[in-house]
Amino acid sequence: MNILVTLDSNYLKPLKVMLKSLFMNNPEERFYIYMMYSNMEEDEIYNVNKFVKKENHKLFIIKVENEHFKDSPLTMYYTKEMYYRLLAFEFLPLNVDKILYLDPDILVINPIRKLYDICISKYLYAAACHNILTVKEINKLRLKPYQIETYYNSGVLLMNIDLQREIVKEKEIYDFVKKNKNKLILPDQDIINALYSKYIKKFDEILFNYDPRYYKYNKILSKGNIDMDYVINNTSIIHFCGKKKPWQKNYVGEFYSLYKHYEKMALSHT
Amino acid sequence: MNILVTLDSNYLKPLKVMLKSLFMNNPEERFYIYMMYSNMEEDEIYNVNKFVKKENHKLFIIKVENEHFKDSPLTMYYTKEMYYRLLAFEFLPLNVDKILYLDPDILVINPIRKLYDICISKYLYAAACHNILTVKEINKLRLKPYQIETYYNSGVLLMNIDLQREIVKEKEIYDFVKKNKNKLILPDQDIINALYSKYIKKFDEILFNYDPRYYKYNKILSKGNIDMDYVINNTSIIHFCGKKKPWQKNYVGEFYSLYKHYEKMALSHT
Repeated sequence: MNILVTLDSNYLKPLKVMLKSLFMNNPEERFYIYMMYSNMEEDEIYNVNKFVKKENHKLFIIKVENEHFKDSPLTMYYTKEMYYRLLAFEFLPLNVDKILYLDPDILVINPIRKLYDICISKYLYAAACHNILTVKEINKLRLKPYQIETYYNSGVLLMNIDLQREIVKEKEIYDFVKKNKNKLILPDQDIINALYSKYIKKFDEILFNYDPRYYKYNKILSKGNIDMDYVINNTSIIHFCGKKKPWQKNYVGEFYSLYKHYEKMALSHT
Repeated sequence: MNILVTLDSNYLKPLKVMLKSLFMNNPEERFYIYMMYSNMEEDEIYNVNKFVKKENHKLFIIKVENEHFKDSPLTMYYTKEMYYRLLAFEFLPLNVDKILYLDPDILVINPIRKLYDICISKYLYAAACHNILTVKEINKLRLKPYQIETYYNSGVLLMNIDLQREIVKEKEIYDFVKKNKNKLILPDQDIINALYSKYIKKFDEILFNYDPRYYKYNKILSKGNIDMDYVINNTSIIHFCGKKKPWQKNYVGEFYSLYKHYEKMALSHT
């Protein structure tokens, strides 16, 4: 199973926690982890590699050199890293036709085989949209001229690399960014939504991109069905969206203890 | 390491969750589980035995026959089971000189070797007292004629069985219960505190008998030191005291997701 991650030094620990949870809860899978990065110390790369190898999976590192994205519009707030996910298809080996991108602020708590096997032969991506009404409406308005029906979250993104090689154009993305610089809040997510919304297959957010900030909201909305028991036994991916992260001091949330548990597992033997 | 548990059918699942967490987080130990019970179906006993055996530990079952405790004072609210912990020394084989009693509403999330090795050669028990001021004061007043300095929680109880065989007398316990029937709230815990308080060695409640209802209280009191990070990495035993239990629907608490995680691990392969 192909997994795409991007990395900078600040996210080294969360990345390992995410990978550890992925490995632990998918014991029947063999993972090929493609890691895109630009500025990382050699010992950090070595550390991740050792970590992945020890668990019997394989890490491929993709160093993005400085000359890449040299024509891309950048501002103080948008770094080159925002293009990694969008243009990964340019960097991945030709034998990779499909890959699952995962943000580092994620816990994988159940098997992801069903997610990976979603048929996207006619789509560029599969993603979930976080179905909180207000967020959705705001985002639609913000990117109005682009026909967005649902606003997808790009933190868990199943990618049809074969089709992306045919359809996605670097220039189109750069043009979009130039034109919308002042409107973009979540750069790559906004781009995917504005340009490719129609080519995204939707998957269940509760199963594959569960936002724990809305634990109570989802529980009430589902008349109690989507409770803690449901999430622990059915949700594959918990995605700690938002500014407050469970590896920071004073985080508050229903899944804090679970996150720290996996963090201990991931970091205790390194 | 000797572990004592008592069991009735209602607590079969929590017991397995507790044992699973104990085994997982103490991979270097071999456990001898002594399980006292009176009314259990044969297939339930078989089920626990299979579960313990599969994890390479050993279960000893101690069936408490009906004629036992026949002189004991019982009321509608106090069943014979309340005496199991107090009089376990009468039932345990002679080679058992020390044992750790564990309630079933417990998660063991770190090694317990340091707890087990506490020296109690001059004590009957080692226990923690939950240091919430109000609770302590109330309990002291309630059992006033008996000189109680601290009120211990009996859910995690390290027992000096050798010394108990010498000192603890069935009759003394029965007399106490007869005399104080109307004052007892937590039967066995009250008895241990009233009769044997002076012979209890105190251990750290945060490390070995952590009450998650006081997560915020402990965090504030410790100026932020005893936070989630501390508990996950240092606490050995989380004890879900009180009426609301994490295996019940609509439980709310910081350690709910962690409990359900272990529950899934314990119950998924049986």
